[in-house]
Amino acid sequence: VADRPRSRDQRIRDTLEKLRTEVDCWVASADADGRAHLVPLSFAWDGTTLTMATPREGRTARNLVRAGRGRLALGPTRDVVMLEGPLEAVPVGADTGLEEAFAASAGFDPRDEQEEYVYLRLTPETVLAWREANELSGRRLMRGGTWLD
Amino acid sequence: VADRPRSRDQRIRDTLEKLRTEVDCWVASADADGRAHLVPLSFAWDGTTLTMATPREGRTARNLVRAGRGRLALGPTRDVVMLEGPLEAVPVGADTGLEEAFAASAGFDPRDEQEEYVYLRLTPETVLAWREANELSGRRLMRGGTWLD
Repeated sequence: VADRPRSRDQRIRDTLEKLRTEVDCWVASADADGRAHLVPLSFAWDGTTLTMATPREGRTARNLVRAGRGRLALGPTRDVVMLEGPLEAVPVGADTGLEEAFAASAGFDPRDEQEEYVYLRLTPETVLAWREANELSGRRLMRGGTWLD
Repeated sequence: VADRPRSRDQRIRDTLEKLRTEVDCWVASADADGRAHLVPLSFAWDGTTLTMATPREGRTARNLVRAGRGRLALGPTRDVVMLEGPLEAVPVGADTGLEEAFAASAGFDPRDEQEEYVYLRLTPETVLAWREANELSGRRLMRGGTWLD
């Protein structure tokens, strides 16, 4: 049985805590021909942007750089946080602060990988959060980059 | 610290058990212009195919029907099962057996919804399963619809 739906305030607090403490997210992407891809990736959250890292020549990086936007989810499926927004590719070597923060948060360091990685930094424009069906109403927490009151 | 990587046999057993017992999966899709979408959906597994249900006019259904293929994942992110393959749309009313099995497994019955739903039945061609980085090697369990020996 589902609990009572959380207030928007509570959901925003829970969402920020989840972004601060979780390590992995699910990342959807697509190529220009509409072939969808899906992978789990580790991330780091700095309070306003979420950074992933993945091989520069891999499907996910190519798809996301092409699209310039990303949609990703933190789970589990009964405690979803969904983020959507523009993203920026940051090559290895371009931002030491970002690289240190990523390595500390994600538990691996793309700078040590044999393959060339790229950082992908997403600035959320839309944030949704819900647990069960009774929380689908009121799931929107951010619109156009602004947390709702 | 990660455990030792599982054998392929063990991963296939674990994967089948996960498909039998889990309720939700993550579903990536894309439109013809390459805009990716991502949602969690409940599913039913009958031993060889996985059936989801979602509103017929929603983004996920339109994207997946257009593509005729799907890629979806069972989590959590440190115990991933990834399935990919062709899918078939089954309208409500077309297959009572499927509808009963879905309702029993997924915990909700699309026939009771106000919106019109569609069932989407995926036949896996590719199955991957891994937990941590040390299981990325050997993650492929099915190729071309056949479980590997």
